[in-house]
Amino acid sequence: MAVYTEVSDDDLDAFIAQYDIGTLESCKGIAEGVENSNFLLTTDRGPYILTLYEKRVNPDDLPFFLGLTEHLSANGFPCPLPVKARDGVALRELCGRPAAIISFLKGMWPRKISLSHCAQLGTALAKMHQAADGFTLTRANALSVSGWRPLFDLARDRADEVLPGLAAEIAAELDYLEAHWPTDLPHGVIHADVFPDNVFFLHDTLSGVIDFYFACNDLLAYDLAICLNAWCFEGDKTFNATKARLMINGYLKQRPMSDAELEALPLLCRGSAMRFLLTRLYDWLNTPSTAMVTRKDPLEYLHKLRFHRATPGPGAYGLG
Amino acid sequence: MAVYTEVSDDDLDAFIAQYDIGTLESCKGIAEGVENSNFLLTTDRGPYILTLYEKRVNPDDLPFFLGLTEHLSANGFPCPLPVKARDGVALRELCGRPAAIISFLKGMWPRKISLSHCAQLGTALAKMHQAADGFTLTRANALSVSGWRPLFDLARDRADEVLPGLAAEIAAELDYLEAHWPTDLPHGVIHADVFPDNVFFLHDTLSGVIDFYFACNDLLAYDLAICLNAWCFEGDKTFNATKARLMINGYLKQRPMSDAELEALPLLCRGSAMRFLLTRLYDWLNTPSTAMVTRKDPLEYLHKLRFHRATPGPGAYGLG
Repeated sequence: MAVYTEVSDDDLDAFIAQYDIGTLESCKGIAEGVENSNFLLTTDRGPYILTLYEKRVNPDDLPFFLGLTEHLSANGFPCPLPVKARDGVALRELCGRPAAIISFLKGMWPRKISLSHCAQLGTALAKMHQAADGFTLTRANALSVSGWRPLFDLARDRADEVLPGLAAEIAAELDYLEAHWPTDLPHGVIHADVFPDNVFFLHDTLSGVIDFYFACNDLLAYDLAICLNAWCFEGDKTFNATKARLMINGYLKQRPMSDAELEALPLLCRGSAMRFLLTRLYDWLNTPSTAMVTRKDPLEYLHKLRFHRATPGPGAYGLG
Repeated sequence: MAVYTEVSDDDLDAFIAQYDIGTLESCKGIAEGVENSNFLLTTDRGPYILTLYEKRVNPDDLPFFLGLTEHLSANGFPCPLPVKARDGVALRELCGRPAAIISFLKGMWPRKISLSHCAQLGTALAKMHQAADGFTLTRANALSVSGWRPLFDLARDRADEVLPGLAAEIAAELDYLEAHWPTDLPHGVIHADVFPDNVFFLHDTLSGVIDFYFACNDLLAYDLAICLNAWCFEGDKTFNATKARLMINGYLKQRPMSDAELEALPLLCRGSAMRFLLTRLYDWLNTPSTAMVTRKDPLEYLHKLRFHRATPGPGAYGLG
């Protein structure tokens, strides 16, 4: 469920009146996303997305997120854009929450991941990294290596409720990751949450990327590692090295990576798996079972972490 | 949450290919409704609704529901219509469920009920009753007076968990309703679920009625009684007789009611309150707290029932 805030007719009419987007014809809550309330508006000019930012988003970060999509779009990267109201301001308030109207991106996220999806995503990710170049705002990645141990500390005592031995395994892995995490690889703005439901395809061609609400400054190759974890494991938990190879090669076609970046990939994939393992573990232990949000299985990411830990080098990802 | 079934890209593409509705550009799950899975499709020709009928809908009833909207529309009543595929068939199957593409009705349901909404609804309800005339399929109302006691029997033992004394109060009320329920009033096809979220307004003008999945043959005035309960109580549980008067007069302007119908209104309102009290009570006792459906408060309808029970006659509804 992704509608946490009910917007009244009067509030909506007054909000829309601030924009030059035509006459409102409908407004329906969208059952996607878990962080914010999203509505599909239609006006006589077409569809728009209305987003109300709920409590998990820090309002101070919104200028970064919205500015980034404007910067990416200006540099030719396809993503939804905040629509400015008549006064030139895009970020407003509705029902006591920060709110914005966002342009509608055609396409659908892929429920079944094909080889072509992976290849196209690799190239698009590299294009996004290049298109973000020159964006002047910065945002630290609170969910990178330095953020993992504090998060683990909040879940450590109860981790073994999910799987006996889990706390010890995470602790040992954190020791390793903190000791070996690279700092001298190319960095820039990354999306940091490129899961399939954030990438749209229209007639099998990638039409754009959405949901930049985890975007931050970090190692570029770490973004690729997140994608490898999110896109290249099959439902039976096996790793599809063909998908990985196509994704990495798609990336390399657009942005060459240094040998150091490629060699760091298994470590970055372990780190990425740790990041999602920890946030899912925390949510699992702290989401009441009555909540309307589906809890995601933390152990899915433990399996991924173990796979990468056993990986001798980038060759396991199909690289020659 | 109103998306119970996840539709894969391939399944959706194959489904849409059966229709002449243009090229699919997006598909988003809608967070409204509780019975079915609803998606907002957009194609290069505009928006459509895709509905997958989930287990609470009896597939045998679908020809009645879909045929009724076609009949109403042909007689000038605004409601969404099933779209026929190229082979002329509207009711199909997707992901193992009955499924249909429905035309998109502009407008939004009112979050705040105004006097004008009530007046317009009264007239529209009467128009709907007239437009349904001549529809040849019939469907019994399983949730009318004869269905209440069996439903109560399923909830009786635990009713007092919700409110001490509730079981006895319902039992006494059922005795009264069964003994006095009218049978000789004008009947026809009724919507039977005209709550505010099923009535759309576009720029303050009623643009249509949706969700005919409880429609059935029953007393026409009972449909008005359902509306009085659903639209004329305020958030503080008080009954707004001005709204009721405007709604009833709006109805009468379009379809005159007999004296017997008007005099039966308090009784029909008690019955309507009983119907929603019982279904909500059953759902309350049988919906696990982990379910993604918000349980509706049965006691809201107990208060409404008590109001109508204390009502001396239709004068309480603002009738002169």
